[in-house]
Amino acid sequence: MYINQASYYLPSARVTNEYFASLNGLSNDWIVERTGIQERRKAGEFENTNTMAVEAVKVLQQNTGSDLKDVDLIVGGTYSPYDTVVTLAHFVQHHLVLEDAQAVSVSAACSTFLNSMEIVEGYFASNKSSKAIVVLSEHNTAYNNEHDTKSGHLWGDGSTAFLISKERLSPDDVEIKDIITRGAANVGKGIEGVMLKPANGGIDMPNGKDVFINAIQYMSSVTKSILEKNGYSLDDLNYLVPHQANLRITKNVAQNLGLSQDRALSNVQYLGNTGCAGSGIALAEHWNEYKKGDVIVVTVFGGGYSYGAMLLTL
Amino acid sequence: MYINQASYYLPSARVTNEYFASLNGLSNDWIVERTGIQERRKAGEFENTNTMAVEAVKVLQQNTGSDLKDVDLIVGGTYSPYDTVVTLAHFVQHHLVLEDAQAVSVSAACSTFLNSMEIVEGYFASNKSSKAIVVLSEHNTAYNNEHDTKSGHLWGDGSTAFLISKERLSPDDVEIKDIITRGAANVGKGIEGVMLKPANGGIDMPNGKDVFINAIQYMSSVTKSILEKNGYSLDDLNYLVPHQANLRITKNVAQNLGLSQDRALSNVQYLGNTGCAGSGIALAEHWNEYKKGDVIVVTVFGGGYSYGAMLLTL
Repeated sequence: MYINQASYYLPSARVTNEYFASLNGLSNDWIVERTGIQERRKAGEFENTNTMAVEAVKVLQQNTGSDLKDVDLIVGGTYSPYDTVVTLAHFVQHHLVLEDAQAVSVSAACSTFLNSMEIVEGYFASNKSSKAIVVLSEHNTAYNNEHDTKSGHLWGDGSTAFLISKERLSPDDVEIKDIITRGAANVGKGIEGVMLKPANGGIDMPNGKDVFINAIQYMSSVTKSILEKNGYSLDDLNYLVPHQANLRITKNVAQNLGLSQDRALSNVQYLGNTGCAGSGIALAEHWNEYKKGDVIVVTVFGGGYSYGAMLLTL
Repeated sequence: MYINQASYYLPSARVTNEYFASLNGLSNDWIVERTGIQERRKAGEFENTNTMAVEAVKVLQQNTGSDLKDVDLIVGGTYSPYDTVVTLAHFVQHHLVLEDAQAVSVSAACSTFLNSMEIVEGYFASNKSSKAIVVLSEHNTAYNNEHDTKSGHLWGDGSTAFLISKERLSPDDVEIKDIITRGAANVGKGIEGVMLKPANGGIDMPNGKDVFINAIQYMSSVTKSILEKNGYSLDDLNYLVPHQANLRITKNVAQNLGLSQDRALSNVQYLGNTGCAGSGIALAEHWNEYKKGDVIVVTVFGGGYSYGAMLLTL
């Protein structure tokens, strides 16, 4: 299976660390030292998970120069839903006017990008789809308590979309060689590390240290696993695209793997933690920089816990 | 692929129509005439989507006489999540202590049962799973406005679970011959017929008539389609298991298809609309009544819109 094109959308409003300094006394230096985050985007009054998903798909239409009418499957990913009935997949189907396309939305927390890709892989394998959109959108600020000094300053909003085909359609397509996803609900504080209870208070991360430690460990080990399983070494790896939770996590994973820091893509500095969209946005931001022969691993870790890796080659 | 076993769980508290009569003046006769609903179950104070999912899985363990340790994939379905990060799939993984199982939760509104089954089909087809649990749980009352005289009286809570294997494991297994799912976001009032906006008011069904009409039409037509596609006629059909939204919808679908009413299974009278769990609970309630040679169609329609059918044979 192949990624034909990638896109992303960011709401225009920027929230700098100064906002949290005035709100709850966290200094810019304190936030940057612990997270690397300098600012994040915030969805506008009339924006939500569904509208941001459509914005990313509009950019995908522009980037492909196509109306995407041949798409037969839409997989939406979010843990910060605007509507769990009219999900982002259905909202995108409505935007594209794709009569009778298959549509479903999923969550495995911040790992959802790879679960969504793996679900597409399954539809391709069962011959029920040949062209799919994966669209990820997070409206973290709709569920965030900005006054929470543990994690209120971490979250940002954004969306990303990918056009995926079963067969190669162009020499420029990026091949998805392998995907691994796993739940890790029995690891550490898996079911109480990060939570988003929509009817009971929204985002909460009471056990950030446990999340931090396990994110580093699992993203490092699953990256090694997927490379080894497919006959690659760490020296072959051109880009690592980790979940964008915290710059220190990314740096630790790169260090664990013996990678120079510039090979680990990062947008958390200027976007904050954009949830399951973060690694997808990072992959999409650099879409035109990848070269023939490049080997890329996207690796994710999320609440639940959950983790995964996806191996891409050009 | 095969269903090895089925289970369901219902919270103990019953809410009768008299409750709504005293709350907002809707009479028992009025509710029964329009919906067939006489009572519904309500989750207890310490119950939620995740705990009810685990209760259904505990019954599945009892029914199978197995600890289910060989399960390698859990697909959770809900549109009324307790936690979108620690999803019901992850919570079930934690309960079963299934190290490294794949886990993801999905929503396509009231159609989610069949989307979940189709996702399992995909994992089987891509050789990433051979034994899976699909678990569906709805905590409608967590998001319902009981004072809403349009739809506040419709909703109930409950959960259901299915053990599914790629290969036949027993002569009693029920074969899944085919699954069809579709989004229908461009049909009628697809994106505004039913909604559940967790951060913006919960369940709302401002266009019940449009939902009613399209539910009848799509469940009738997709049932015909899946039978014809697989070489069966309506005369071959022993049981129809429709989405449990409204007894009048079920009766209309049966009438459209020329089926006697007793061949259409129904629990909406005593459970209300239990969302994506409803048709699964109905299938599970009658699990020991199906006989060799029986042909069963599960058909669903949900917000979004979304619809589907699953063909089962014994």
